[in-house]
Amino acid sequence: MEAHGLSGGLGEDALHAIFRSSYAGRKGVSGPGDDCALLRPPAGRAVVHSVDQLAEGVHVERGTAPALMARKLLRRALSDLAAVGAEPWAVSWTVAAPPARGGAWLKRLARAFLAEAAVFRVAVAGGDVSRADALVLTATVFGLAPAAGVPGRGGGRPGDVLLVTGALGDAIASGRHLLPEPRLREGARLVERYRPHAMMDLSDGLARDLPRLCAASGVGASVRLEDLPLAPGLAAGEPGWRAALGDGEDYELLLALPPRRAAEALQDRVLRRTGLRAMGSLEEGATVRWLTEGRRWRPGKLGWQH
Amino acid sequence: MEAHGLSGGLGEDALHAIFRSSYAGRKGVSGPGDDCALLRPPAGRAVVHSVDQLAEGVHVERGTAPALMARKLLRRALSDLAAVGAEPWAVSWTVAAPPARGGAWLKRLARAFLAEAAVFRVAVAGGDVSRADALVLTATVFGLAPAAGVPGRGGGRPGDVLLVTGALGDAIASGRHLLPEPRLREGARLVERYRPHAMMDLSDGLARDLPRLCAASGVGASVRLEDLPLAPGLAAGEPGWRAALGDGEDYELLLALPPRRAAEALQDRVLRRTGLRAMGSLEEGATVRWLTEGRRWRPGKLGWQH
Repeated sequence: MEAHGLSGGLGEDALHAIFRSSYAGRKGVSGPGDDCALLRPPAGRAVVHSVDQLAEGVHVERGTAPALMARKLLRRALSDLAAVGAEPWAVSWTVAAPPARGGAWLKRLARAFLAEAAVFRVAVAGGDVSRADALVLTATVFGLAPAAGVPGRGGGRPGDVLLVTGALGDAIASGRHLLPEPRLREGARLVERYRPHAMMDLSDGLARDLPRLCAASGVGASVRLEDLPLAPGLAAGEPGWRAALGDGEDYELLLALPPRRAAEALQDRVLRRTGLRAMGSLEEGATVRWLTEGRRWRPGKLGWQH
Repeated sequence: MEAHGLSGGLGEDALHAIFRSSYAGRKGVSGPGDDCALLRPPAGRAVVHSVDQLAEGVHVERGTAPALMARKLLRRALSDLAAVGAEPWAVSWTVAAPPARGGAWLKRLARAFLAEAAVFRVAVAGGDVSRADALVLTATVFGLAPAAGVPGRGGGRPGDVLLVTGALGDAIASGRHLLPEPRLREGARLVERYRPHAMMDLSDGLARDLPRLCAASGVGASVRLEDLPLAPGLAAGEPGWRAALGDGEDYELLLALPPRRAAEALQDRVLRRTGLRAMGSLEEGATVRWLTEGRRWRPGKLGWQH
């Protein structure tokens, strides 16, 4: 844990102390303070990890409160653990910030990050804070892999049912993108009980993310637009579908299950609480098709515009 | 591995392909491509990790070639592994960059990073690239902990000999800071054969880093200025000492050994190749004293000025 020329009004030692006052309630993770942090997972558990960034003006609007930035940073990164059914375990993070932010701002950021880490029971294992010309945060999350193994994006097969948790669209306009709900419980349950052939979290919108799952699996897909779960405030029809396909930042899980397991998962009481919807299937080929009343529909230009 | 709005002239898929074309010649590390990368260390080996940042205008001058940035980023991070005697194993990295950099620039950065990872035999396990208003890179390195256990900064005891590898000072003015040599072989050998009570790498200069080791260990120290190993181009005397104490970015190892083991280490042929110098000792108390001819010297204002 280092702090490079960013102590502001706070004093560098005080800043270090805040970054070091980590939530460390997990066995096998040594806290920050030395040059390296130790990760010693429970016997027989593999570790997965993923890194995510949050840049001011890109992932959050300029002037967003530091506590919200910290919480979004951690939650987005945890969504990557949800996508493989892993149990959150530890996190390292970095802060690059203009010196003008000052110590009080940094303190609010760090305290919110530590509090959120405690909520999700992830030990803060390390970090680094540096001066920079723009505000860029990163979080590297570590998870304990599920006993059933880690699903990737590449195992989908023609005939698989495509499913999605929760609801899609409107996350940015509604402000929900600031506090996404990582689908950790749902991801773990899906992997443990239903073994998805492929799974991922939806960060860039279904229209960009589904083709990634298809490309990795070497398949095509068709999606029935009428079966898309739309966020509250969106109505069925072209504007609603466009929002569900293109807005992005949903952080819901997209997965492929063989038909019988899909039918079982749709009855699962834990998954029904969040919502799980079958809305399409994987197919031979490499084309992703959007269907309404059996006819192909082309969404045109997508993407939520700031 | 995601790329957010930064494809420039290159096309997003091509950018992904470069980031995915990782050096993956290490067992137990799955490459990037899915939401999470798997880390499965060899049986019985603990994993250490550390995260480092490189901000343009702070750690490198504006306009530094992308290949140099990538190499410095990785080498600085590896220096943290050297400081605990760990064997480099894997790395995840992030790039936040203004879109104006464009695809060709990113390609040079990524290729240099991958080539440097191959040189140091670290598998590239993941990464993320995003738009931002300034250039900020991060690297999270993973190492396999030495069998002898990981030295921290906190185990130094009064009476320990203070030693330092290589030579100090002038790294920034000479340009050496752009391609630091992580003391991996030396760190591993020191831990394996001589078990330092405390060890760290010198990134901010001896005058800032030694007090950190002392504070963590609950001791004071005295350093004989005449015994400091000075970088080529520096002469003994006050300007040379000030450079050795304050310039920073040396990435040499600072360590504390009990006297008998210090004497043995000073004869070690591997360590002598790089240079290992006894230049002081740890003491009761909390004061760090700089001595010349037995008298206390105060360095005044330190730090290399850009």
